[in-house]
Formats: sequence, C-alpha cells, structure tokens
Amino acid sequence: MGLFTQPSIFENGRKAGMMKNFFNVVDIDQVIHLARQFSPVETEAVALAEAHQRVLAEDVAAPEDIPGFSRSIVDGFAVAAGSTFGASEQNPGYLEVIGALSMGTVPAQGIANGQAMQIPTGAMLPDGADSAVMVEYTETIDDQTVEVHRSVAPGQNIIQADEDVQKGQRVLTQGMRLRPQEIGLLAAMGIDKVPVHRRPVVGIISTGDEVVEVTQKPKLGQVRDVNSYTLAAFIAADGCHPVFHGISRDNFETLQEACRTALSQSDMVILSGGASVGMRDLTVDVLSSLEDTEMLVHGVSISPGKPTILARSRGRAIWGLPGHVTSAMVVYTALVRPFLNHLSGLATSTVNSRIITAVLSRNLSSAQGRSDFVRVRLTPKGDLWEAEPVLGKSGLIHTMVKADGLVAIDKDTEGLFSGDQIQVILI
Amino acid sequence: MGLFTQPSIFENGRKAGMMKNFFNVVDIDQVIHLARQFSPVETEAVALAEAHQRVLAEDVAAPEDIPGFSRSIVDGFAVAAGSTFGASEQNPGYLEVIGALSMGTVPAQGIANGQAMQIPTGAMLPDGADSAVMVEYTETIDDQTVEVHRSVAPGQNIIQADEDVQKGQRVLTQGMRLRPQEIGLLAAMGIDKVPVHRRPVVGIISTGDEVVEVTQKPKLGQVRDVNSYTLAAFIAADGCHPVFHGISRDNFETLQEACRTALSQSDMVILSGGASVGMRDLTVDVLSSLEDTEMLVHGVSISPGKPTILARSRGRAIWGLPGHVTSAMVVYTALVRPFLNHLSGLATSTVNSRIITAVLSRNLSSAQGRSDFVRVRLTPKGDLWEAEPVLGKSGLIHTMVKADGLVAIDKDTEGLFSGDQIQVILI
Repeated sequence: MGLFTQPSIFENGRKAGMMKNFFNVVDIDQVIHLARQFSPVETEAVALAEAHQRVLAEDVAAPEDIPGFSRSIVDGFAVAAGSTFGASEQNPGYLEVIGALSMGTVPAQGIANGQAMQIPTGAMLPDGADSAVMVEYTETIDDQTVEVHRSVAPGQNIIQADEDVQKGQRVLTQGMRLRPQEIGLLAAMGIDKVPVHRRPVVGIISTGDEVVEVTQKPKLGQVRDVNSYTLAAFIAADGCHPVFHGISRDNFETLQEACRTALSQSDMVILSGGASVGMRDLTVDVLSSLEDTEMLVHGVSISPGKPTILARSRGRAIWGLPGHVTSAMVVYTALVRPFLNHLSGLATSTVNSRIITAVLSRNLSSAQGRSDFVRVRLTPKGDLWEAEPVLGKSGLIHTMVKADGLVAIDKDTEGLFSGDQIQVILI
Repeated sequence: MGLFTQPSIFENGRKAGMMKNFFNVVDIDQVIHLARQFSPVETEAVALAEAHQRVLAEDVAAPEDIPGFSRSIVDGFAVAAGSTFGASEQNPGYLEVIGALSMGTVPAQGIANGQAMQIPTGAMLPDGADSAVMVEYTETIDDQTVEVHRSVAPGQNIIQADEDVQKGQRVLTQGMRLRPQEIGLLAAMGIDKVPVHRRPVVGIISTGDEVVEVTQKPKLGQVRDVNSYTLAAFIAADGCHPVFHGISRDNFETLQEACRTALSQSDMVILSGGASVGMRDLTVDVLSSLEDTEMLVHGVSISPGKPTILARSRGRAIWGLPGHVTSAMVVYTALVRPFLNHLSGLATSTVNSRIITAVLSRNLSSAQGRSDFVRVRLTPKGDLWEAEPVLGKSGLIHTMVKADGLVAIDKDTEGLFSGDQIQVILI
C-alpha cells in the first residue's frame, strides 16, 4: 500500500507489511469455529459445597433410588387406599388408628385394611399402606378412630421409593454448569466429591507505551490500564481464573518475554491495547516469533473490533484484542467468551440467561459483510424491554457504563428497524 | 380446629394451636414489603480487582477528566481541521509533515495551519491540532509532504480531554452491582479501593429427625440434607456468604440453641425442613422463645411454599422454609432473594437478567388468591423460547433439575393460556 514508508512509529521493529494481511478479515462464525482446535481443560474433583456453577466433567448416574423408601408428602394418615374407597363428606369412612409414625424411623408395624396410622409429612409409610389421607379430610373421633371424608387412590399423597430418581438412571450430563438444583440432586445422591473441569487460567497482558498502572497518576499523554481490569472481570464472571501479567512496553523483547511467561502459566492469553497499526504489527511479529505458533486470525469482520488477532501457540489460544475498551469488550463477548466456554468444557445447549428479548426504539443501519455490535440501554416498556442505542465512539468507556447490552446486527443484513423484536446480549 | 387433639408427634412441645394462625396467610407482595424493616449491611473498601459483582456503597464522582488530554482514535495525521477543508479525492490537499508523535508522551512541538504530524491511535494531539485525518484518506508524497483526500471537522477522529468523563461528574450510583465496564471506569479514574457493601452472611440450619449429612448413608426412613446445599448455592449465586449450621433435631432446646448461634453470626438465618405441622409448630415455638423476636409472617399465599415463616429477631430476618426442596427453592426465589438483595444494598432498578420472555406451550390453571409458581422447561422456538410446564410433586428434586425456570401466575388470575407470552424466572 506504500503508506508510512519512512521509518516511523508505525514500523517499530517490523519487516512485513501488515496492511495487506489486515484486510484479509474473517467472519465471526469462522473465528468461533476455530475454538474446536483447542482442548477443554482437564478435570478435578471438588467438594460439593464448592461445585456450584462449575462445569460437570462426567455424566452422573444415580447410585441408588431416591428417596429410597415410600414417604408421605402430607400430614395425615397412612392407609391402604382401598380402605377409603367410597368415603365422602356425606358418607365418611371410619378407620382404626393403630399408632403414630415419626420422622426418620422405620415403622414398627404394618397396617391392615381398615387400619390407619398418623403420619407427618416426610415420614416412611408402614407396610400395607400405599397412600395417605390429608388431615384436612379427616376428623379424629377418639384415640382409636378417625373419620375419613375423601377417598384416596393408591400412590396418592406419597412419593414412591424410586419416584424421584431410579437407581442407575443418568440424571446429570457432562458439560452442564451446575445450578443450585443440580447441587441439591448431588446432595440427595450422597455425591460429596464432584468431577468438574478445573477453571481455565487466562493470562492478561496490557500493551502500550501510554498505559500506566491504575495506582499511578497518568502524566499528560498517558492513560491507566483499563482493559486488564475489565477483561479480568469478564473472565471471572465466566467462571475462569484471570491472572494479570502487567503492562508490556511497545518493545519486541519485552512483549515476547511477557507472552512466553503468560503462555507457560495459562490456558489462554489475552493481549490488549495496541490500537495503532504499529502496535498491531509488533504483536503479530512477536506472536510469529514464538515457538510452535500459528497465526489463525488477523482481522475480523466485526465492528467495533476489526483489528483482532488470534494465534495458536503450543496448543493455547493467544488473542490480540483492540485497545479501545469498547472494542475489547465487544470482541470478548462475541469471540473470546465462546472460546472460554469451550475450554471450560461447557456444552452449548443450556439456556443463555445473558440474552433477552427487546424492542428496538429506532432504525439502525449497518454495513453489509460486517457484524455490527451496537450498545443499547434497556427500559421497561409494558411486558417487554425497549432497547435504545447508546451512541458514542468506541474509545469512550462511559458508553458501556450507560449500556445494558449489545445488539448484534448480522453481516448479511443492512440494518434493523424501529419496532423490531431483537435479541440483546446483556453485558 | 380440633384436629390431632391427642398427644402426638404433631404437638411436639407446643401449646398454642397453630392451625388457626396457619391459615392467616399473606400475599407475597406483603412479605417482600417487610424487607424494609431490615437494614442493608455495612460497607467496606475492597481492592478494585475484587470489586466485580459487588454492590457499590457510595456514589462515585470523577476525580479528574478522562482521558485528561485530547487523543487520536485513528492512525493518521494530527491536523487543524481548517487545513483540510475542501480536500477530496479529485482535489487533494497537501500538508507539511513536521514530525511523528508517539504514544504516552507530550508532543515536543505544536502545529500551525497547513502542517501535520503523524499520529498513532491513542497518542496525544499537539497544540494547534483539533482533529485527525485517517491514514486511509492520505498518501505520503515524501518525508515532508502528505496528500489529504478527505476533509475533517474540528473534533473529528479524536477524543477530547473531557469527552469520556468530566471531572466532578457523578458517574456511578450507589446500589448498583459492579459489572466489568464499571470496573473499567473505576480503573480509568484510578480508584483502586472501592466502597462496597460487605457480603451478607446467611446462616443455614436444616431441621428434621429424618435428615442426615450428605456423607452419610441414610437408613430406611432417612434422607440426606438436600436443602442446605441447594440454599447455599442460591445464596452464593446472589453474592452472599452462606454458612452451614448443621442439622438440628426436632427438639426445642437443640433448635433454640442452633438458632441463637446462627443469629449471632449472621445477617439472616434460614431454617429449612419441617414440612410437617409438628415441625412448623416447633419452629414457631422456638422463634417465639427467642429474645427480642417478633413473628412477621406465618403462611404465605404462594404455591408451592405456603407454610413459610418469617420472624425478626434482634433486627435480623429468620425464615422457616418448607422442607420440600422444590417449595424451598420457589420460596427462596420469590421471597428470600428480594430480602437478600435489599440486605446487600442493591437498588432495584437494574435489568434483571434472570427474567426472559417465552411463549407458554399449554394452558395452566391456577387458584385465585394464590401466587402459583410453575416449573417450566425452555426450548427454542423461532426467535423465542417455548415454556413447557414440568409436572410433578414438589418433593421431587428431579423436576427442578428438568426445569429451566419458573412461571409465576398472579394471584388475581385464573391461569394462563397456551400461546401467552410470559416472563420466566430462570433458575
């Protein structure tokens, strides 16, 4: 292209012209597809109390029936259902009460037809009983007699020994993120060590001569390291473990060393910063110089976020994210998160609580051939949300603070219209 | 009511007849309203890297302008916009290139009209420059001359010194849960200690003679402690700190002691279990016996979950949740969570990512005067989700594992119809 042919900051230590590569962009689907080139992290066993929100690494079959015995789910009387047939308010039945059952114990005796035992919710049914009459439909006559005002069917008001879970049944599937109810089911089955994928470790390197630590007062021309903190928060929210590897100066050796260190300690590495062509070129040069490393992506048809870089280094993904904080967040959401989900061992079939439906407040145009991500603010409108675009340059972090979500405009469309029902990715 | 007048398991250590209270149920809105009787927990300062998802305790005003200097958001040439007016592809302008700017430094010189300096994305503008021309619209002629093919307006392709945030502007509001972008904004402002509410501590006591530890093999008639683990997972997911206080037997002194201990160490206490009338009565008796304690709720018009108890003990909420695991989860979702959000200091205005829109697959009837919560499974249907009710008794945990969410049927309606667009609370 012949631009910037004189030695300049744009050519800091690079040889290859990068502009020709830069416009060889790929679609976001193509990038996400590359996740399959990487392996999910290995597994570990964690205590049940720590397993919440972790990704299950193996299918789980029930080692026993649950609850394991037939129990009442009402306060009332354990009976043989046949003893109550025909009973009604007008024509009550009378049963002999032969005792009272208590929680957590095996009934000392069984019952015969025409007999009943008091039973509290959760207690085990005696032999001979197949159902329970709710106390509301009975009247105690004396110590030995109860009047029954409603009949019950066999199995009514009880849980059978294997009604919740049958021994051997596959109850949980590997690749699911464990919710409270799955934790509860594991507890019910006595599984107190749970096989899960360990949390992927993600190394974060900030780049740029203008970037200083958050604790520093920037001089004129300098800015604090926003991206490391933002990315770390995203990574943690996705159940992974972010590790800061500091700020690397715009220098080949420094950045190369930082990449090597981070790669040796991480399952994935994210470089951010380098919004300038010079910095992008330096990043490409450094990544190309690493052992056993292949450039996979050099530019994505996404806006904001086009100058995104992805390489595979010794089986690990290493990203170069744009320096503009909004661009970095969009690329994280659209591209990095699917990779992390894959590395985490997550199956894709779960309901995504990050996506909600809203109605667009105004027309949004978009360039064809490019996936546009527009920041939107959500306000309640009847039963739905209305999505109002938040306008502003992608270098302005306050636009992300004002936004509740992102609307993706597909590369094959020219835009969206006011009143369209759209899917919003919450951020 | 005269039921169970003989001494029995149903009258374990109680004097007052509870049935008359039991049916004095209140609506869920009335219960949620009671949250105001409790104070949010105090605040603490945490390191920025730990502040993600915490609840901000104070409004935050910007201590300085951001970015603090005018910077380019493109690779190109810093110019005075006036120097480019009228420039076009057909009629390019020519500017004198007097140098190149670099990242993180203050320009050594200013520019005059007709002059330009090379500038990378993110670098500081020199005095005299008010805009930047993108490199794509220039052609370098020689070391001192650049051809400009497009004019720029003042302010174009740059971020002004206070364009992102103005000094003194209130940028964050107390009561918000900090997302990655808020963490980024705090980083940009150099706020590395963040005032947040501490995480409320929630004590969990399981009750019931039939309940055994997860690590134990239950004997016939016994079940493992499912509710403690389930509730702990919910509590942790809501940003609070669950503390197990073990399993308390159905005995006045034991339960009283467990409640005292838990209350002294917690901001809220949740008892669970006690699905039987006897256990509920025991819970009421124990709570009534505690110092400075008032019963607030004794029965809620919610299904499942009617026999829910709430008391205030020395300014702390103490709940008695039903023993059936599904009931406990519904009551947690509908009632306990709003309390915890209030205790956490959370403002209610944030978008709730737990609620998504779906289309109901079949009619659902409901009793008027009662809020029904129906478990549903979600499957994609076009752009929306279809919600299919998961049927089953509330004692069956597998029904919650099969479910993706809950549909609340308002107490003033008789039900919902197939095809209705409904809100689903993800679980």
